[in-house]
Amino acid sequence: MSAKNRLGNYFEDFSIGQEIVHATPRTVTEGDVALYTALTGSRFAVGSADAFALGLGFPRSPVDSMLAFNIVFGKTVPDISLNAIANLGYASGRFGQPVYPGDTLSSTSTVIGLKENRDGKTGVVYVNSRGTNQRGEMVLDYCRWVMVRKKDAASPAPAAVVPELPDSVAAADLVVPVDLEIEKYDCALAGSTDLWNDYQVGEQIDHVDGMTIEESEHMMATRLYQNTAKVHFNQHAEKSGRFGRRIVYGGYVISMARSLSFNGLANAFSIAAINAGRHVSPAFAGDTIYAWSSVVDKMALPGRNDLGALRLRTVATKDRPCADFPYKLDDGSYDPSVLLDFDYTVLMPSRA
Amino acid sequence: MSAKNRLGNYFEDFSIGQEIVHATPRTVTEGDVALYTALTGSRFAVGSADAFALGLGFPRSPVDSMLAFNIVFGKTVPDISLNAIANLGYASGRFGQPVYPGDTLSSTSTVIGLKENRDGKTGVVYVNSRGTNQRGEMVLDYCRWVMVRKKDAASPAPAAVVPELPDSVAAADLVVPVDLEIEKYDCALAGSTDLWNDYQVGEQIDHVDGMTIEESEHMMATRLYQNTAKVHFNQHAEKSGRFGRRIVYGGYVISMARSLSFNGLANAFSIAAINAGRHVSPAFAGDTIYAWSSVVDKMALPGRNDLGALRLRTVATKDRPCADFPYKLDDGSYDPSVLLDFDYTVLMPSRA
Amino acid sequence: MSAKNRLGNYFEDFSIGQEIVHATPRTVTEGDVALYTALTGSRFAVGSADAFALGLGFPRSPVDSMLAFNIVFGKTVPDISLNAIANLGYASGRFGQPVYPGDTLSSTSTVIGLKENRDGKTGVVYVNSRGTNQRGEMVLDYCRWVMVRKKDAASPAPAAVVPELPDSVAAADLVVPVDLEIEKYDCALAGSTDLWNDYQVGEQIDHVDGMTIEESEHMMATRLYQNTAKVHFNQHAEKSGRFGRRIVYGGYVISMARSLSFNGLANAFSIAAINAGRHVSPAFAGDTIYAWSSVVDKMALPGRNDLGALRLRTVATKDRPCADFPYKLDDGSYDPSVLLDFDYTVLMPSRA
Repeated sequence: MSAKNRLGNYFEDFSIGQEIVHATPRTVTEGDVALYTALTGSRFAVGSADAFALGLGFPRSPVDSMLAFNIVFGKTVPDISLNAIANLGYASGRFGQPVYPGDTLSSTSTVIGLKENRDGKTGVVYVNSRGTNQRGEMVLDYCRWVMVRKKDAASPAPAAVVPELPDSVAAADLVVPVDLEIEKYDCALAGSTDLWNDYQVGEQIDHVDGMTIEESEHMMATRLYQNTAKVHFNQHAEKSGRFGRRIVYGGYVISMARSLSFNGLANAFSIAAINAGRHVSPAFAGDTIYAWSSVVDKMALPGRNDLGALRLRTVATKDRPCADFPYKLDDGSYDPSVLLDFDYTVLMPSRA
Repeated sequence: MSAKNRLGNYFEDFSIGQEIVHATPRTVTEGDVALYTALTGSRFAVGSADAFALGLGFPRSPVDSMLAFNIVFGKTVPDISLNAIANLGYASGRFGQPVYPGDTLSSTSTVIGLKENRDGKTGVVYVNSRGTNQRGEMVLDYCRWVMVRKKDAASPAPAAVVPELPDSVAAADLVVPVDLEIEKYDCALAGSTDLWNDYQVGEQIDHVDGMTIEESEHMMATRLYQNTAKVHFNQHAEKSGRFGRRIVYGGYVISMARSLSFNGLANAFSIAAINAGRHVSPAFAGDTIYAWSSVVDKMALPGRNDLGALRLRTVATKDRPCADFPYKLDDGSYDPSVLLDFDYTVLMPSRA
Repeated sequence: MSAKNRLGNYFEDFSIGQEIVHATPRTVTEGDVALYTALTGSRFAVGSADAFALGLGFPRSPVDSMLAFNIVFGKTVPDISLNAIANLGYASGRFGQPVYPGDTLSSTSTVIGLKENRDGKTGVVYVNSRGTNQRGEMVLDYCRWVMVRKKDAASPAPAAVVPELPDSVAAADLVVPVDLEIEKYDCALAGSTDLWNDYQVGEQIDHVDGMTIEESEHMMATRLYQNTAKVHFNQHAEKSGRFGRRIVYGGYVISMARSLSFNGLANAFSIAAINAGRHVSPAFAGDTIYAWSSVVDKMALPGRNDLGALRLRTVATKDRPCADFPYKLDDGSYDPSVLLDFDYTVLMPSRA
């Protein structure tokens, strides 16, 4: 009688080129959107009001970019990172077709890199994951790499393959909904008159507000995404784990930072790309999340003078207001308050 | 480079007659309704079952009156009360068009009063706020006044304008859906055979049950309403604040009291007016909310013998059952257990 | 002036044959489904993705069996178990018509048994409860019995009537959606290749994962079901109660166990019957729930070779992993970690 439960894949279970169809397709609904608002406080008008989204040419409010990300990501966990020790990084993330309530999302991954660590007990797995809707259209395509345990330290190391991943997604590769009627954009309803033109490369923005995380909130968010990583849910096991407590799913911290960024980036209505991302430190219930952003780059979009792209770095901290933009120390290490260093590209209306 | 984040308005930023269009219009969905049920335990049948609402002539279940109130209110916070010290009162609140899932709500406010306090550091701002749906129809119109900090104590006091606000909304001013077919009302499904005729002016009703509030619950509710008042969310800042902890949004306490009032007022299916309201004391996570109501007035409705209005006072307490109707002490001050003193008008079916 | 609040029925308020129409019909929505996912982490593909459910011949994703159960059950609480000391057991539970978002559920109960306890202060009430949709179709029919307080110990004992309830629901009595096109079932998306054929009577499955319950979560779930039992919500009263704290609603523990059972029973897409169930010990916030299942019986379904039934026992524990299947001790009493002993029948695709 074979075991029917699943214990997740170990490092030696992965091979270069392996394709994995992830389980549990998911129809996104207005219920998910309401919960996302309740759990993160998101206020971007395009995602909040159908009438506002209609004015821009969307058929209705698209789902928040990070809600789509977290749902697509969640499906990959049972196969990719159930036995992961660390989620090391993201690259080459592109959002495609907007997601609307009623769409059904599925995820697949391809193994694009493998490198055993010197300790012989762990290795790094690189995957390219793709989320698609019920019509097979790409809604999100990204790479991430995780450190995964070996099941047996004696199993031989595979030939090391480390993919070359770009520093950022080029403007020409960003997917912009083609018939967006941005001239109807209402800045009063959006919450800010600052448009693409008003942001300068190098500008730093304190998002001011802080939001304290509770156990219920991060667990509800993480379950909503059907992310099954054990460290987020099981206090009985974690009390004797590395931190003595449950770890907040990193995607929830990204969502919190993105929602806090409304105060200073209210017109950044959509995320177009994830260039890079690092969960610098774990977050725990009781932590108060603050955030600040800097403008890394401004990119005009081919053929569009009503819309531009901003490459941003958003830094989230714990228990540390961001008026002085905490980031790295003189020795290059991160300020101990930093939880997240997230490099991504947003779309924003511009004045002609 | 100008600051892009928003720090809220101070007392001297307001002027009489000023019109403010609040950001973040909001499409109300079935997801919001489910969350409202999960966060408050609301059981009024009209809002719970489409089939029941259809029997009365509604096209489907309207959204709970207090959910509509909290969403309309939430939008006003970033402009009106982000720097408020206290939410002093409500008056002249009228509910208009019922709100249904799919409706998009927007809020605007007019400054109708200003009065600097003697301390020279704060002032009272009176606003008339209006929530409208996507067709521009009024769904809620109310006045509130808040105590707001001055940015600079040296700035001159404006001429004092204190609006005259009525003690209550007259029966003739209540909005009653015109084609309500109340003769089909099913008391068994509604949960009580007590109709408008059965209530007497002066009658007091203990709502019996108590409900304990958790941090996650009040924060989720408050974020669902996109209410950004800092005191509700930021334990890192509040731990050195006035109370050492996060304060529960007063609108959540009203919702809890209204939901508890089902036990004794099950047929009060809709709120038509908010006559007055006072948040007597702050509520905190861990408090158990109890409530009782008294019937302040009974009002026949012009041209209707199937429906009447009851003016109610609902008092919410913390950690204090309400069998003996705790309210004011001999010296006129409130019993220390009282959190909320809420004067409002409900609609209830009547026997012909 | 008669009391308008309701204090629930006592033992002497029930009589054999009594029919009770429960209040608060409820339209189930996508919001409820999203909350159910967020509160339990359910991952069964049929309930997660419309596209997957369509492939099987459902018009869209049906609502999780346990969400339907909990909503139907919740309505019975104000009339049946508000003054209950213990929820003693379930029997003869059959699920009927699948429930879809948009359906409105109502509940009625018939008293089928009464037996006063020897202490003269309590008695056992047996009810047959039925949940129906807006077309009057049965969605759930089950029996349960509860121990209820007498209002007055001096009131005479009724003639004892104890209904004979079957040990399990026969295969022929299970309701199977008639036009299920199970041949299109996609095991990769469902999360497991183990079908009905692969399970053996006597087989034991550890569901591996543990999930810690927080106060907010069980209260939100229980309010979502409009279950008003006081012990779940009122810390102020419970602090001087039997356990000094709020008790988690047993139906939430069943939901957690069912959701955890995905890991090992991913293709058990629907519950067809509840044969028996016992809440062995109360659960509290902070408990980590684990679960394991054994296959009690395998039942072919008349006229179907694409689908079979498995009778399962799922045992939920607190703070106790289930790799060694904790259940009963040598003296026949339950292992102290056991919370739930649940005997039910699921539907699962089979290979022809």
